[in-house]
Amino acid sequence: MTPPPATPGTSPTFATKKVTTARGPEPRQDRAVHTKAVVLKAAARLFATHGFRHTSVKDVAEAVEMTKGAVYFHYPSKEALAVAVVEAHYAEWPKLLAKVQELELPPLETALAMLDGAALAFRDSAIVQGGARLQIERPHIDTELPTPYVEWTKLLHTLLVQAREQGQLADSTDPAAAARALVASFFGVQHVSDVLAGRADLEERWTETRALFVAALRR
Amino acid sequence: MTPPPATPGTSPTFATKKVTTARGPEPRQDRAVHTKAVVLKAAARLFATHGFRHTSVKDVAEAVEMTKGAVYFHYPSKEALAVAVVEAHYAEWPKLLAKVQELELPPLETALAMLDGAALAFRDSAIVQGGARLQIERPHIDTELPTPYVEWTKLLHTLLVQAREQGQLADSTDPAAAARALVASFFGVQHVSDVLAGRADLEERWTETRALFVAALRR
Repeated sequence: MTPPPATPGTSPTFATKKVTTARGPEPRQDRAVHTKAVVLKAAARLFATHGFRHTSVKDVAEAVEMTKGAVYFHYPSKEALAVAVVEAHYAEWPKLLAKVQELELPPLETALAMLDGAALAFRDSAIVQGGARLQIERPHIDTELPTPYVEWTKLLHTLLVQAREQGQLADSTDPAAAARALVASFFGVQHVSDVLAGRADLEERWTETRALFVAALRR
Repeated sequence: MTPPPATPGTSPTFATKKVTTARGPEPRQDRAVHTKAVVLKAAARLFATHGFRHTSVKDVAEAVEMTKGAVYFHYPSKEALAVAVVEAHYAEWPKLLAKVQELELPPLETALAMLDGAALAFRDSAIVQGGARLQIERPHIDTELPTPYVEWTKLLHTLLVQAREQGQLADSTDPAAAARALVASFFGVQHVSDVLAGRADLEERWTETRALFVAALRR
């Protein structure tokens, strides 16, 4: 729920990227790719639960029953693991967008379906939860992380401009303001749900907040 | 923006407490009270800027040009300073409520005035900012802090029930859901504003989110 600004390099966006994976039967490389993904997911889960400071590469190695050296082979440091988790968090959103776009909904409903999908991902995905926790802890992580919120705001802004053009929005709606408000409110809802309920009630909490936004925005 | 549940002892609430201060001319005690407040404010500012981990009692002592021993005289540990800052953060809200209640506004406007006042406090008050940062970092602070969000939600719930009774709310409004949504959204708005703009744009960001809630809630 927290993509970045205009710093190329560290800037995942909603543009779907060509994913280059090993082609054909290359069992050794396949296994390496699989192992790397397993390490990443274990790290995400540990970061989500214990935070950056209280997670060590040793913890990650133990979680996946590997040696520390084997983990370091894939990720040279705990910071590299953190960056990879945050990047994997962001990589979820173009995938979600592609799925939502297949539904060919009107733009307002596309925006809402994106946020609904994000709510489920924050509730259920270790990668998304790990990335979210690391973003909250960014002042304490000694490495550059993508700037949060900005790409989500851009996406919702674009969709709400289209929604206004198609007559879906109340006349008074400012798409830019509404996009910022939606992103900040969604972030707040998932965070409060995390602190008070480990996100178990996130779907319900998001649904009730979403209903208020729909009442305010829809023509 | 983050009061606690039903754990007596560590639970500041919106009930205004009798403040016991030194009475009459007791210069020595007055000075001690003043010094303690100066230490607290300096600690709040450092916690807000650098976080709990990167603030030391030595930093606080240097900021107020005192010895570490003099700081320890008032607060026996960094954890005690953190608890005091968070408690001082919460102590702002009953004061704000007393001020807002003097205006004798209808209940919906009282709820909004509380959040407007909180937005200014998050933007301008070192104590409020320090307490907010420490609450975000609560998983990393090795001491019991009050549970956030709960008292604010109760207050807004009570006000919105009154607003509904007085015919101020749209029929579809569920006061409990709206109170939770307002608290979570306010939290999100101030946090995103903090991350992206050091809260310089918080008033503007809160105003645009507030407008959407008003459109959704008001009859």
